[in-house]
Amino acid sequence: MVGPEIERLIQLLSRLPGLGPRSARRAALRLVEKRESLLVPLGQAMAEAAAKVRTCSVCGNFDTIDPCAICADHRRDPSLLCVVEDVAGLWAMERTGSFKGRYAVLGGLLSALDGIGPEDLGIESLVARALAPAVTEVILATPATVEGQTTAHYVAERLAQCNVTVSGLAHGVPVGGELDHLDDGTITAALRARRAF
Amino acid sequence: MVGPEIERLIQLLSRLPGLGPRSARRAALRLVEKRESLLVPLGQAMAEAAAKVRTCSVCGNFDTIDPCAICADHRRDPSLLCVVEDVAGLWAMERTGSFKGRYAVLGGLLSALDGIGPEDLGIESLVARALAPAVTEVILATPATVEGQTTAHYVAERLAQCNVTVSGLAHGVPVGGELDHLDDGTITAALRARRAF
Repeated sequence: MVGPEIERLIQLLSRLPGLGPRSARRAALRLVEKRESLLVPLGQAMAEAAAKVRTCSVCGNFDTIDPCAICADHRRDPSLLCVVEDVAGLWAMERTGSFKGRYAVLGGLLSALDGIGPEDLGIESLVARALAPAVTEVILATPATVEGQTTAHYVAERLAQCNVTVSGLAHGVPVGGELDHLDDGTITAALRARRAF
Repeated sequence: MVGPEIERLIQLLSRLPGLGPRSARRAALRLVEKRESLLVPLGQAMAEAAAKVRTCSVCGNFDTIDPCAICADHRRDPSLLCVVEDVAGLWAMERTGSFKGRYAVLGGLLSALDGIGPEDLGIESLVARALAPAVTEVILATPATVEGQTTAHYVAERLAQCNVTVSGLAHGVPVGGELDHLDDGTITAALRARRAF
């Protein structure tokens, strides 16, 4: 009824995270309504991103240059490597502005259920980078989920052969978090890791 | 930090309904991750929609042909005109499959606050169409909001000069709706419009 062009637009939009079939329809309508100010520029931005953005061959970040701006930035601390699940994790770390080392993007987490083994993740390249004399510490920043921590343990084991300190993000009460809204595991972890006030 | 191409993608995506800044970032990442299967086809689908989809000069629907497939479909009942706020409303009516007439898309609602007057909506063209001898009934299907009903009243007044029946969608309990979750106005309307069982 809505024509194959709009149907295809809806179908592709509904594959974006956060957009279900209903909101994909609303998004398609908005796009067609705002043809000049939104549909045309967004189509061009996508074509441009598709043409220019690539995966950094060193760390797995997305950028238009390879190595990426982070790997190529000589002001960044070469002794620190931060291991993240994906580029979303890398961006989240970068937004804090408090990490000045470099990254290793695994591109996923170990998962027996999904059949994702060590060979599917960028672990060999991480170990190779951790063997470089400049690297002194590897920070495991995979998610605090079962799969994230399983992956972190596996990576830590593989790094035992390298001459590096292996650390992980601290568990605890999120800044601004109320105790009543937190799960027991987080409170227990925060209690165990309590510090002098 | 993420490069101007991805930054622009995020900024444009965040203007879609249903995507905030955070989900626009996630959507941009998904797009770059699924370059061949999502980013490239979606960019192409947008370019194609921008090139082909236009506004029907008769009813205001979006389609690749003008008049649109609904206006051009001779099996549709020429005696019924359904007035909707926007193309989303038209699509919602079409999804029911229970309306076989044609449409008039207003392209908005009267709003003193937003400075939208009768001349900004497609009311003149609607009145002209309602004057055609074939048209016998105009169904007002603007939203059941204050602005939607104000607009419906204004349109009804303007149609008084035409020789047509003017009707509106019934108010009542939504199918599947529980009384406890409904507002008082809806229950009152449903009670007033009660029917023999």
